[in-house]
Amino acid sequence: MKFPGSHILSMAQFERRDIEQVFTVADRMEPYAHRRRITKVLDGAILGSMFFESSTRTRVSFGCAFNLLGGEVRETTGFEATSLTKGESLHDTARVLSGYSDVIVMRHPQAGSVAEFAAASRVPVINGGDGANEHPSQALLDLYTIQKELKHQGREGIDGLSIGMIGDLKYGRTVHSLCKLLTLFNNVTVTLISPDELRMPPEIVEQLRSAGHRVVESDNMEQSLSHVDIAYATRIQAERFANAEEAMLYRGRYRLNQAVYTQYCQPNTVIMHPLPRDSRAEANELDNDLNDNPNLAIFRQADNGILVRMALFALILDVVEQVDTHARDVNWYTERRF
Amino acid sequence: MKFPGSHILSMAQFERRDIEQVFTVADRMEPYAHRRRITKVLDGAILGSMFFESSTRTRVSFGCAFNLLGGEVRETTGFEATSLTKGESLHDTARVLSGYSDVIVMRHPQAGSVAEFAAASRVPVINGGDGANEHPSQALLDLYTIQKELKHQGREGIDGLSIGMIGDLKYGRTVHSLCKLLTLFNNVTVTLISPDELRMPPEIVEQLRSAGHRVVESDNMEQSLSHVDIAYATRIQAERFANAEEAMLYRGRYRLNQAVYTQYCQPNTVIMHPLPRDSRAEANELDNDLNDNPNLAIFRQADNGILVRMALFALILDVVEQVDTHARDVNWYTERRF
Amino acid sequence: MKFPGSHILSMAQFERRDIEQVFTVADRMEPYAHRRRITKVLDGAILGSMFFESSTRTRVSFGCAFNLLGGEVRETTGFEATSLTKGESLHDTARVLSGYSDVIVMRHPQAGSVAEFAAASRVPVINGGDGANEHPSQALLDLYTIQKELKHQGREGIDGLSIGMIGDLKYGRTVHSLCKLLTLFNNVTVTLISPDELRMPPEIVEQLRSAGHRVVESDNMEQSLSHVDIAYATRIQAERFANAEEAMLYRGRYRLNQAVYTQYCQPNTVIMHPLPRDSRAEANELDNDLNDNPNLAIFRQADNGILVRMALFALILDVVEQVDTHARDVNWYTERRF
Repeated sequence: MKFPGSHILSMAQFERRDIEQVFTVADRMEPYAHRRRITKVLDGAILGSMFFESSTRTRVSFGCAFNLLGGEVRETTGFEATSLTKGESLHDTARVLSGYSDVIVMRHPQAGSVAEFAAASRVPVINGGDGANEHPSQALLDLYTIQKELKHQGREGIDGLSIGMIGDLKYGRTVHSLCKLLTLFNNVTVTLISPDELRMPPEIVEQLRSAGHRVVESDNMEQSLSHVDIAYATRIQAERFANAEEAMLYRGRYRLNQAVYTQYCQPNTVIMHPLPRDSRAEANELDNDLNDNPNLAIFRQADNGILVRMALFALILDVVEQVDTHARDVNWYTERRF
Repeated sequence: MKFPGSHILSMAQFERRDIEQVFTVADRMEPYAHRRRITKVLDGAILGSMFFESSTRTRVSFGCAFNLLGGEVRETTGFEATSLTKGESLHDTARVLSGYSDVIVMRHPQAGSVAEFAAASRVPVINGGDGANEHPSQALLDLYTIQKELKHQGREGIDGLSIGMIGDLKYGRTVHSLCKLLTLFNNVTVTLISPDELRMPPEIVEQLRSAGHRVVESDNMEQSLSHVDIAYATRIQAERFANAEEAMLYRGRYRLNQAVYTQYCQPNTVIMHPLPRDSRAEANELDNDLNDNPNLAIFRQADNGILVRMALFALILDVVEQVDTHARDVNWYTERRF
Repeated sequence: MKFPGSHILSMAQFERRDIEQVFTVADRMEPYAHRRRITKVLDGAILGSMFFESSTRTRVSFGCAFNLLGGEVRETTGFEATSLTKGESLHDTARVLSGYSDVIVMRHPQAGSVAEFAAASRVPVINGGDGANEHPSQALLDLYTIQKELKHQGREGIDGLSIGMIGDLKYGRTVHSLCKLLTLFNNVTVTLISPDELRMPPEIVEQLRSAGHRVVESDNMEQSLSHVDIAYATRIQAERFANAEEAMLYRGRYRLNQAVYTQYCQPNTVIMHPLPRDSRAEANELDNDLNDNPNLAIFRQADNGILVRMALFALILDVVEQVDTHARDVNWYTERRF
């Protein structure tokens, strides 16, 4: 993929070297995200943030990433109030709104809508989630987190990884996307832990196997966690079930807490989760008693979202090499409680 | 009108030379809107964007226009949550909110409300639409588009124009405002095409005639389009009808598509529409098959909204002559797909 | 209190010298708030504005205060759409969102929620109102206004003040907080004017008396106003009553208008109100005929909110001494109608 000017719509656009390029640029964004330096490389640029479905953290994460590069953000949230309800086509919406900004991030409840919008847009569009379809920046930040956590343990790269995915593998968009990304790497072991009714769709299992990966399916979490480098837990996607009561049957089926971790996991197993985790007693998929476990990577994962989104903006707008030349030191209090 | 510090509430404030001044300044904003240059002339200024009624594109267009001049935007959208529901007067709201910004753009569902607010405001207020009453920046961008499109065809000025207005001329606020603006010019032919029940209000027809213009009314679109320079189509304003079913009777009554255009229009007839156009099959007032017609000006019209709004801000805040001195080149990818 | 890096959660954190420090810094913010100068001291900093309960003016006031210091603002408004509805704990929300900004202002309907959030936040958090509990910046701006108005009359300081509080003293959070602040000063006379059913909670009266202040309770406004320096009126907090009809009984019980003012008040008595005032005929607690009374301080009070919030940001982010070194003149029209 050539990044400058590109839309980012689907993980299918990415080859392995594209991903590696995003990650290299993301690493370079760390001084800015951690407020050791600020950069004004996108001073004067405007991000159009079009969230036709709400997602506070994705929206704020993209917005902050753009601000951290020095740009401005104009936002739309919600659906009812837009011209789409007056019969406007996505084509027209795109033609108009893309005249107002330099790049757009869009979220929309309907699969395929962002690609349709992008086809008529005059500026690059990033898919911030189109229903059950894709959410590429989430998949990238997950994989980036895996690489970074392993590197922290002294391991280079994703090849040879052993990962366990736990919970609602049927409806969980993030685990689907992550599996697709993993097909670009070598010799991965994927352990899929779910109730029988919420198994990973067979076509995704097949893609993993076609890539030469080893796939194990299980409905027993404890027995399956002993050898994984990464334990990736997910929330039951109650909103995707035909009836809410059925979803209730599965909430709390798998609960990873410190006792389970100590007994069954390797001492360095990294715990991930796309967030939000459901901390109500009847769900509690990742217990709060893990909060002091240094291998709980879920908040670093969210922080990495900023780095990956900054990298995507810098690549699409072709300013990677200028980021540091527009930089200066931070002059306010930044003693963060990490 | 003296611009610096003025409220922009109604087209009735404008004389012909004021309009020409706005258009001259709008022309000078093009390098910034098209991202060939950026300017920081309003660096540090704050726009208060108070949308007590939602209108995504008007809100975003004003916000981007202000950002493009280097300023910041603080927004309020919606009505329920405001102090107005606790019995606060518009006077008090204005006194408080006008202490928070350098200029305000306000939209409100109630006719006259923006003027009432402006009377108590300590900073200039732009009317972004007050119910069925006025929406001056829309009228200005429409007229600016007419002038620019004609100029592109080698014609100077609006005098002598022939324009057809099509559709819901009874409730369409934009065509009412445009007619009022046209009374400031000479020798215009206005062809009003609508169902008999949705005719242009007689007082507006009378204003056009008093200005010396020729007005023709018709309910037959095809027969009336042969001689117009501009075909200005409108959406049935279903939300203004007493009952929604009545509005349905008129949707789709006039449909301009490429076949009609080829058969009945001049080869250079410019097609305009205030947007959103209703692209659902039962309405489809401007067919999508016109999208490749180079005379379809509807998206250039939306783009011109940015230029006109930048011009209004620059005039009101008295920075027109400083815009270029605070400018520099753009350093990011801007290869737009126009 | 040491300001740099501190959370601002409750007035109980403040000693008298802290308050005096805030007020000294607030005074220094005036040239920027009044647009005689701009400062870019927080250029590159991001405020996370998290309003899980709506409050237009508090939100916009904080946002503008941050913009006036040169920083950017990313906002969240409303509750329904957030991850909290998917069972996320405030701890998790805080851990994630605090990775996106340099400082957070948060409002939430539930008492104690902001403190819970702050405990997990990695950046300083300002309480923008947590239900019936606290709203420290409002209390500070009220006291700052008192000091400033008295100073304008040639009096130094708050010691020896005589203040009357009028209306719903049972549910009015602002008068509760103001009373707590007054316990840090000496020799204050507090006249509490309310219907018997809406009297100031006895524990607050007790706190005032323990501080050595004189407290008088009355249900007769006219007889009680003759000796006060400050008349602080409040709105009936209808939304806090168990049933709305009961609240109606008290609306309009006390009405301060110019005739009452002339007959019963000192010629320099300052009129304050936390706003919004309920200007509907059946309430009308502060009549519009007071708008020309130079001692009506209610809009200066709102303006002071900007100064106090700028001061809090400057203190927390430790840039007080740098504000002026990052300043320059304003180049746009600023002839305000004060």
